[in-house]
Amino acid sequence: MTEESTFEKDAALSDSPFMRACRRESVPYTPIWLMRQAGRYMREYREVRARVGFLELCKTPDLAAEVTVTAAERLNVDAAIIFADILLILEPMGIDLEFAKGEGPVIHNPVRSASDVERLREIESIESLDYVFEAIRRTRRSLRPDLPLIGFSGAPFTLASYMIEGGGSRNYVHTKSLMYGDSGAWHSMMSLISRGLIRYLNAQVAAGAQAVQLFDSWVGCLSPEDYREYVLPHTSAVIRNVTPGVPVLHFGTGTATLLELMREAGGDIIGLDWRVDLHQAWDRLGDVAVMGNLDPVALFTKQEFIRAQAQRILEQADGRPGHIFNLGHGILPETPVDNVIALVDIVHELSQR
Amino acid sequence: MTEESTFEKDAALSDSPFMRACRRESVPYTPIWLMRQAGRYMREYREVRARVGFLELCKTPDLAAEVTVTAAERLNVDAAIIFADILLILEPMGIDLEFAKGEGPVIHNPVRSASDVERLREIESIESLDYVFEAIRRTRRSLRPDLPLIGFSGAPFTLASYMIEGGGSRNYVHTKSLMYGDSGAWHSMMSLISRGLIRYLNAQVAAGAQAVQLFDSWVGCLSPEDYREYVLPHTSAVIRNVTPGVPVLHFGTGTATLLELMREAGGDIIGLDWRVDLHQAWDRLGDVAVMGNLDPVALFTKQEFIRAQAQRILEQADGRPGHIFNLGHGILPETPVDNVIALVDIVHELSQR
Repeated sequence: MTEESTFEKDAALSDSPFMRACRRESVPYTPIWLMRQAGRYMREYREVRARVGFLELCKTPDLAAEVTVTAAERLNVDAAIIFADILLILEPMGIDLEFAKGEGPVIHNPVRSASDVERLREIESIESLDYVFEAIRRTRRSLRPDLPLIGFSGAPFTLASYMIEGGGSRNYVHTKSLMYGDSGAWHSMMSLISRGLIRYLNAQVAAGAQAVQLFDSWVGCLSPEDYREYVLPHTSAVIRNVTPGVPVLHFGTGTATLLELMREAGGDIIGLDWRVDLHQAWDRLGDVAVMGNLDPVALFTKQEFIRAQAQRILEQADGRPGHIFNLGHGILPETPVDNVIALVDIVHELSQR
Repeated sequence: MTEESTFEKDAALSDSPFMRACRRESVPYTPIWLMRQAGRYMREYREVRARVGFLELCKTPDLAAEVTVTAAERLNVDAAIIFADILLILEPMGIDLEFAKGEGPVIHNPVRSASDVERLREIESIESLDYVFEAIRRTRRSLRPDLPLIGFSGAPFTLASYMIEGGGSRNYVHTKSLMYGDSGAWHSMMSLISRGLIRYLNAQVAAGAQAVQLFDSWVGCLSPEDYREYVLPHTSAVIRNVTPGVPVLHFGTGTATLLELMREAGGDIIGLDWRVDLHQAWDRLGDVAVMGNLDPVALFTKQEFIRAQAQRILEQADGRPGHIFNLGHGILPETPVDNVIALVDIVHELSQR
């Protein structure tokens, strides 16, 4: 590739509606992508998964690239997101991670005490995650040259709570018991995770991701006071150390009382779930881009209902530069694929400037 | 009993710190009770449950009264709450309810369509729930005469979502699909539930409950807009029709964006979960009493930590009349009972006027 064509490709990417919206610049229409857009709701994805397990798919760059590109093309969205899992970074820290059929992630050696925390491995080199970077490189090669690719990971709190609970949780008793009961061990664990995350996210950028997203999916179980004390310094350290110029998307659910603090922790784009009014939330957040926030269950209804809901959200955004349309959480497995495709078209059509 | 002694008992109840706080009158100390205070964390309760199943316990007035009174006396709280379940009212509507071991409630004939809604039975008479009223009468007889007794039920949305999902749910896909997809059937179902609830709550009052609580435990899955359209009119109809003069406690979790609307729906006391700052939430709510809001997991820590957290919440309440101390959700099964007893003492001690 000549230097000139690299430059042209970079310019095309940088000038894409998604990247422009990340920088709160004017856009020809509101860009849209969907969390978990490559997933079980899509026949093409299920066909690949019929042959390989979830973790194997993550670790096979050709297949990960294939499902990433297929989803982005089929949906006509304005960004691709690398097929991976928010928890992959746990393995090089010494966590024994399994994706049990129908159960989601299971951790066989959960972290429950200060001595468990001491046994966690510092991620000195991220070589063992090369499969993610290779998937990014291959995706970048087959993706439309003007289509941005998003890298991602779980955020420090969500990673820590998974490591401690050993799987999903309703009340986060183990997590909060460690956090409240041994704040030294807690901060040491969060720091170790954060140092690893910085290396991991920047390696995704080096491999070809144009933006990165932190998923703080479980942070909504915390009070604002707990977030400030136990989470904010660590998420902030991660975001501050992402390669300069690379937009960071910062997303959580159940975060209605945490939005100002998430903004303080950082990120160029704050992700909103469906339980906040986008207009009000954006007013609270101030000068930052926002992403959201259709209820994923709206996609189970008729297209006229979906259209009305998309219209409502676009009206709440009011043409203000820096809105990226998305769901308020990931696409659910039983979602009708035609409704997802229709949503993308509807958002493009209704937001034409 | 002579008329005079009845009058004296009524006066003692009415002048109790709990009832005074419900009316936002001055109190000698902040009253406290705890959601699910008669529960599995307590040895006395587990001993009763070793002999009878959960639903059988609810339906045996002597035993229900026993666990109600034992918990209130053991903890030295300022109100008792009748031992029952938020879902009991579903049975007379034709719902086949089971409490499977370790699984929580399971409904064998969930409501999924308009024709399922049509098959629901109107609660013309609440005779089949006589066991609840009898438990209240027996509890009232053995309870300290100045200790108020709270009756309760699930709120319309939480009842409807249980009936539709058939059990607990993560995404409420069936509930929202019916709500968004057939709003006529939805409103018809919510109206039927609400009419039954009015009869049920008022019969609890007639049997001897001094206050009633609506638990809208799952309402936090809704956006403010959805709450206004699909929930508010029904909850409001229930609360408006509770026997005049009886305080209504209105509680939900994950309601940070719904508080103003819950206030609009009604209730003399709004329950807050631990994810909102009590001071800020009370400012938003205005002239109403509030209940809350310690994180239930705080009770798993050391008593000095519990003391600091109780102090923080009392400072947020700032001595303003109308604060009832409680957890932000029910006591968790593994909670150390000594910490629960300590919390009650701490709140009484720290809030002495």
